[in-house]
Amino acid sequence: MTGLAARLPPMPNFTPGHVWLVGAGPGDPGLLSLLALHALNEADVVVYDALVSADILALAGPKAAREYAGKRGGKPSPKQRDISERLIELARQGLKVLRLKGGDPCLFGRGAEEALALAAAKVPFRFVPGITAGLGGLAAAGIPMTHREVNSAVTFFTGHDAGGDLPDSIDWTALVNGAPVLVLYMGLAHLARISAKLIEAGLDAKTPAALVSKATMDEQQVIETTLGRAAASADAARLEPPCLIVIGDVVPLRAALNPNATIEARAAAAEAILDRTHR
Amino acid sequence: MTGLAARLPPMPNFTPGHVWLVGAGPGDPGLLSLLALHALNEADVVVYDALVSADILALAGPKAAREYAGKRGGKPSPKQRDISERLIELARQGLKVLRLKGGDPCLFGRGAEEALALAAAKVPFRFVPGITAGLGGLAAAGIPMTHREVNSAVTFFTGHDAGGDLPDSIDWTALVNGAPVLVLYMGLAHLARISAKLIEAGLDAKTPAALVSKATMDEQQVIETTLGRAAASADAARLEPPCLIVIGDVVPLRAALNPNATIEARAAAAEAILDRTHR
Repeated sequence: MTGLAARLPPMPNFTPGHVWLVGAGPGDPGLLSLLALHALNEADVVVYDALVSADILALAGPKAAREYAGKRGGKPSPKQRDISERLIELARQGLKVLRLKGGDPCLFGRGAEEALALAAAKVPFRFVPGITAGLGGLAAAGIPMTHREVNSAVTFFTGHDAGGDLPDSIDWTALVNGAPVLVLYMGLAHLARISAKLIEAGLDAKTPAALVSKATMDEQQVIETTLGRAAASADAARLEPPCLIVIGDVVPLRAALNPNATIEARAAAAEAILDRTHR
Repeated sequence: MTGLAARLPPMPNFTPGHVWLVGAGPGDPGLLSLLALHALNEADVVVYDALVSADILALAGPKAAREYAGKRGGKPSPKQRDISERLIELARQGLKVLRLKGGDPCLFGRGAEEALALAAAKVPFRFVPGITAGLGGLAAAGIPMTHREVNSAVTFFTGHDAGGDLPDSIDWTALVNGAPVLVLYMGLAHLARISAKLIEAGLDAKTPAALVSKATMDEQQVIETTLGRAAASADAARLEPPCLIVIGDVVPLRAALNPNATIEARAAAAEAILDRTHR
């Protein structure tokens, strides 16, 4: 790390009374952005949710207060409205308020809802994007979201609406035809129903799928399965959330790209894949 | 920035003879990950492409060699195969090789292709994800990719296949129905044709759209338009690539979330949006 600190680029001021809505990424502190680290260092108060890892929270400045705004045990989680009102209150106290969310605040992170409340209250804010689970978790598993031979489109969707149910706005037939690769966020709770919907909509039950639980953290688990067996695989492995699910023909590339495979196994798999396609 | 350097988390070794395939994000050095900055600091050679900003390249260590692997002027770009072979050659010289790509290497970044070549050659590598333009560019424009009232799915697609043509594998009807928000990468060159395809497939020509050119850089331009007028708007503003295009009802949220609007304008817009929905 020698010399690294000296090369940090200049950073914008974190003005008192402002709220920064910051993505913390999937868990590995190395995936934090420089702006996020700067915000952690400068903040007077960090309002964080359940998906922010302890390793990342430990990077907050020694004087920063920490407020938890996620679900804890069986207790009901704070209402979105309460969180937004708390952010406004803290900002009006003249504090530098860091709202820290797992992944990215604007991709299934409800960042826009909080920002709208801040905007209406005339509290200045900025978004700092984070490495969403689709990017960070799949890279850690060795699965690309796109590959030239497989797809020129990828759809991210969530298995949870605001009330915790399966979203009812999804057109399942269009979803399965719209992109050859689907990345499902927060899908573990309803995985059996979601898989059934996708198969009923025409997706082959044998379509490769992978489950990535606690991506980029020490407890990361990756399970390769198929769409039809995904829910049973998750149960058998007792996977816990957060869990990302990817469905499509990018999954088999993992044989060649899995960071935990031996170099010989990766080479053999890569040769086989290249023989089938590029050459 | 005081104290920030002291709080940098420990980083993995960049082993000689290894290749790190790293995403540089959309341009703002503040969006680099800590791992990416570490890689820049440690690398013996940086093989970078056209979408990596000068500000980011300036963060490479003083002894690092820099090799350009993108398009320059009217000259043909190096073939993908040549780039992969060059990475293998540099790694076999025992160098720490940083392959630096704009955005994220695994989302329309051809990172998997290079990784497959490295795997087949038994060259060790790792992916370091980056803030893709969809995350970074839209956050900078004040447009969320998802919002509870608008969408529980978003599709990223590209307007360019490997040969530079419109991808022929896209099912346009499914695409427009599969997700209420579409994010188009590399779509400027074929924007008139793509818009026509989307409208022909059933998407309303009046659907809100935004064009984000040179996202997060000093030259950033954001234009709000509609799907039907998008190509004409891009021409009129003489937008240059890279340009991200977002289509869907998340675009009007920008009135409340645009970082360059006045706080009064944002408040009025946010009030109007909240009146229509949450309350």
